[in-house]
Amino acid sequence: MNCYTYNEISVGDIEAFTVTITDEMMSGFGAITGDMNPLHTDELFASAAGFKSKVVYGMLMASFMSTIAGMYLPGKHSLIHKIETEFPQPCFVGDTLSITGEVVNKNDTFKTIELKITARNEAEKKVLRGKMRIGVLQ
Amino acid sequence: MNCYTYNEISVGDIEAFTVTITDEMMSGFGAITGDMNPLHTDELFASAAGFKSKVVYGMLMASFMSTIAGMYLPGKHSLIHKIETEFPQPCFVGDTLSITGEVVNKNDTFKTIELKITARNEAEKKVLRGKMRIGVLQ
Repeated sequence: MNCYTYNEISVGDIEAFTVTITDEMMSGFGAITGDMNPLHTDELFASAAGFKSKVVYGMLMASFMSTIAGMYLPGKHSLIHKIETEFPQPCFVGDTLSITGEVVNKNDTFKTIELKITARNEAEKKVLRGKMRIGVLQ
Repeated sequence: MNCYTYNEISVGDIEAFTVTITDEMMSGFGAITGDMNPLHTDELFASAAGFKSKVVYGMLMASFMSTIAGMYLPGKHSLIHKIETEFPQPCFVGDTLSITGEVVNKNDTFKTIELKITARNEAEKKVLRGKMRIGVLQ
C-alpha cells in the first residue's frame, strides 16, 4: 500500500494495476448488493439481450476505483469525496482489466486531488472511464 | 425483481429499499476489490483519523446503486450507462440505509432514464447522493 502525503503528489502522477474478473467476484458482488439482475447472472438472458455472455456489473468495475485510491494514489491517506464513471463498452467474466489513475488536478485549500480513471481490457478497449475527487488526510 | 418497460416509467416514479451494512459486507468488498485501506479495516487508524469507527467503503455504498437499477427501477431491463455520486457524511458498520431512486428525466430517443439517488442513515443523514443514467432494454 502506498502512503503518499498531499505534498508528495504532483499533477501527472500515474498509478496502475491489473485485475482479472472472476465468477467468484460476480457472485460475491451479487451476494453483497442483492443485485440478481439476469444480465449479470443468466447467460441465456444476456445472450438474448445481444451480449456474448453475462455482463460484468458496472458497479463491480467501478469498485476498483476504491482500490486505486485506497491502495495506490494516494494510498493509506485516502478519503473519497466524489466519483463519476461511465461504461462505454461491456466487460465479461475472464477479462483482465488495466485500471489506471492519473492526477489531473490538486486543490491546496482542501487538500484534495482529482484523478482521471480508465479501465481497459486486453484488447485495449475502454470499459470504464471516470473521475474521482479524493481527500488526502496527511 | 421489477420488470418495468420504458413506456411504463414516468418522471416522479420512486422506488426504495433498506439495507444494513455488516462486517461480512465490508470483508467481502475488501476481498473482491483488494482495497485493504486501514480507514475501512482498522478501528484504531479510523479513530485516530477522527471517525467513531471503521468507515464503510464509499464504493460499497455506491454499489447499491446497482441494486436500485437492476432490481427496482427499471429492474430486469436495466443497463447502467453512467453514474455520479458523492459521500457527504461517513457511514459505519451497523448503519441501516434507506436507498431511494427517483426518476427525474426520460430520453425517448435513447430509451434512457435518469435517477436521482439518495442513501440516508437512521438519523436521516444523507450518506450518499448521486445520479444515474440507465438504459431500459425493453
